[in-house]
Amino acid sequence: MNTPVEGFSRLSKAEKIDWIATNFTKNPEESRQLLQQYWNTDGKVQKLHDEFIENTVSNYYLPFAVAPNFLINDRFYAIPMTIEESSVVAAASKAAKFWLNRGGFKTTVLGTEKIGQVHFIFNGDFNKLQDFFSKIKPDFFSDASSITKSMEKRGGGIKDIELRDLSDKVKGYHQLHCTFETLDAMGANFINSCLEQFAQTLKEKANSYPDFTQKEREIEVVMSILSNYVPKCLVRAEVSCPIGALNEDDISPTEFAQKIVRAVEIAKAEPHRAVTHNKGIMNGIDAVILATGNDFRAIEAGVHAYAAKDGSYSSLTHASIEDDIFKFWIEVPLALGTVGGLTSLHPLVKLALEILQNPKAEELMQIVAVAGLAQNFAALRSLVTTGIQKGHMKMHLLNMLNQMGASESEKLQLVQYFKTHTVTNASVKEALEKIQSE
Amino acid sequence: MNTPVEGFSRLSKAEKIDWIATNFTKNPEESRQLLQQYWNTDGKVQKLHDEFIENTVSNYYLPFAVAPNFLINDRFYAIPMTIEESSVVAAASKAAKFWLNRGGFKTTVLGTEKIGQVHFIFNGDFNKLQDFFSKIKPDFFSDASSITKSMEKRGGGIKDIELRDLSDKVKGYHQLHCTFETLDAMGANFINSCLEQFAQTLKEKANSYPDFTQKEREIEVVMSILSNYVPKCLVRAEVSCPIGALNEDDISPTEFAQKIVRAVEIAKAEPHRAVTHNKGIMNGIDAVILATGNDFRAIEAGVHAYAAKDGSYSSLTHASIEDDIFKFWIEVPLALGTVGGLTSLHPLVKLALEILQNPKAEELMQIVAVAGLAQNFAALRSLVTTGIQKGHMKMHLLNMLNQMGASESEKLQLVQYFKTHTVTNASVKEALEKIQSE
Repeated sequence: MNTPVEGFSRLSKAEKIDWIATNFTKNPEESRQLLQQYWNTDGKVQKLHDEFIENTVSNYYLPFAVAPNFLINDRFYAIPMTIEESSVVAAASKAAKFWLNRGGFKTTVLGTEKIGQVHFIFNGDFNKLQDFFSKIKPDFFSDASSITKSMEKRGGGIKDIELRDLSDKVKGYHQLHCTFETLDAMGANFINSCLEQFAQTLKEKANSYPDFTQKEREIEVVMSILSNYVPKCLVRAEVSCPIGALNEDDISPTEFAQKIVRAVEIAKAEPHRAVTHNKGIMNGIDAVILATGNDFRAIEAGVHAYAAKDGSYSSLTHASIEDDIFKFWIEVPLALGTVGGLTSLHPLVKLALEILQNPKAEELMQIVAVAGLAQNFAALRSLVTTGIQKGHMKMHLLNMLNQMGASESEKLQLVQYFKTHTVTNASVKEALEKIQSE
Repeated sequence: MNTPVEGFSRLSKAEKIDWIATNFTKNPEESRQLLQQYWNTDGKVQKLHDEFIENTVSNYYLPFAVAPNFLINDRFYAIPMTIEESSVVAAASKAAKFWLNRGGFKTTVLGTEKIGQVHFIFNGDFNKLQDFFSKIKPDFFSDASSITKSMEKRGGGIKDIELRDLSDKVKGYHQLHCTFETLDAMGANFINSCLEQFAQTLKEKANSYPDFTQKEREIEVVMSILSNYVPKCLVRAEVSCPIGALNEDDISPTEFAQKIVRAVEIAKAEPHRAVTHNKGIMNGIDAVILATGNDFRAIEAGVHAYAAKDGSYSSLTHASIEDDIFKFWIEVPLALGTVGGLTSLHPLVKLALEILQNPKAEELMQIVAVAGLAQNFAALRSLVTTGIQKGHMKMHLLNMLNQMGASESEKLQLVQYFKTHTVTNASVKEALEKIQSE
């Protein structure tokens, strides 16, 4: 392939596939068939999914699974999870079961504040800008009223608009730092629409403000956009029990509790470990984020920045032993939606939300935080006892056998065999070859 | 649902679905049918996907799309992307086309070092521990030789093992900080297996080391695990051109270049903006990560921690104007695999890799970095010119119309109409109601 393609997005799906298969694959006919193999048999369903984004040629499958037995604030949940990693759902289910008989998970929403900013350049007298801002502040609200009307009816809207001087960082740089309550919507479209209106109001009013010099009137808006950093859209999830209740095989309850606490201490102190520790938490969080049609890039960015907020990247979870009570908790920012976006478009997202009993956004925040905490507990439990590889490789066994082309009866035999043997790539290969040559 | 379920993972798929549908959905029969609607018609293909993880009940569709016209180091690529967000592939394609006639993307791999750590507690004389470590260091390599043999044959393996004293952070806390070269494998299983062997060697040798006191002999391994923080597994991607070549509508090339540079300056200075700026980069990166069967949680964690490495969360991209040359680049840590894991299991991942001409891991790092840079360029271009909402809402128009139940002919009419009108939820609803009542 040596020449660019013109007007690709306007080609039909068949033409797009044809171009890709012919120019980039060895066996175009096979490639075409493979892409089609993944289409839905119902043309209407397929068209819906095709139209989610541009240039769709097929459906990428991620497993849609369920982790049962989550007791959250004394209510039972089965949590839908969408993820490709072999140990995540199994770990979540195990952690759910572990805490089921120890009081379950308790959660609290600590805040739901969303943030958006108008970034602008003003070169002039900041005192005059402040006076100007105080005078025109009501105009921001009234000029945006057609955008905010329906959100306000439901109890949300613009919470506040604040003027910030950041000219020590970038010459002339100031902000309208705005906070919002978007209820059950993630709110990106609402917030961005408000901000673009604020930017317009700001420029227009400045342009005719009598106390400004000509230079001061020429406010330049650099950009208007929501922030995915939402430290006040925060939820807490917790488990706790008397140390004596932490009965595990091969390790005393006290030692187990101490090992977990120390593993968390280490993740707090050492960024190399903290990153991996939090990655495990995100395995659980993202699996629910995907299943419920939320945007995992937004969540990831906000969560990791929150983990770095004190100047050194650190653990999102915390653990303590006090008065013989073991406590393990997470505080995590989650700006989620249960209406809008994919939530009412993707049939499996709708089903996932139904399985969760159609939660409000605040309830979903709590469920997602629990999924993250459970995942971290399961990972730490493995790490400080048997090590991570044992469980992980066991979970990955079927994938390895599929990759090696094992038959169904070979798989059955080897799953049995590896219940008492160590799974490594080499040992699986060897065992399979052995039964194949028998 | 008031009672937990026992042995859920051992139920058949049909029994699992039955339990979920009956206990958590209003119309169990409809729920069953919906989950089945998303199964592959080929039983063997479906079984493969079912076995990726535990408790799979259906396939979650993400659109599998392609962004054409990427010129990277003078070679053409069509980049497979898997993502649900409506503007990502369109933005990537636009950025690719923009740079196609301006020299394309240039990339360099700056390092491929992977990291793993054995975290342990040693209470005693650090000098003695250092002597001990020097003496037994060769044993780590030789004891792990059965694990490293095949990786070494291909030119990879353990690069170094370093002893670190972190007892100022947590009492008695020390590390074996280990570096690896894992070639085309992401390397998680390889690294974790090596580390668990190192931990065993460490404990055994310490236990019989004559110069240690009894207390010193009792080294306690807390955990052994790879790190997803890989600042030396780094790739750089860049675009540049004379400012005069940045011809855009409604804005002079110089002003456009300056606005991009300033938008990047702001993202460097202000964490609220940096998080969203980098989130946009990850839209592009994760779409390729997913399509190529890599683990997006690992990438996200490593990338965001890297963005926070200097104490304040900051931009991953950089921009400059020097001698009338505009330059825009990214440096980003990416530990990727093109063998192992899902890469040889998921048929669409295999196809995605084929479309990319079966790249080595280093080449995939470069392609992924380009996808991130392209996405950021497209976002900044929108932000500093028309604003983000215009393009985004246009892309989202079909989704909104589908949600509102528009017919095919209504969709055609309204797509035409909104070519010259502003897309908001309210305006789309109004326009649809208007043509429906005509």
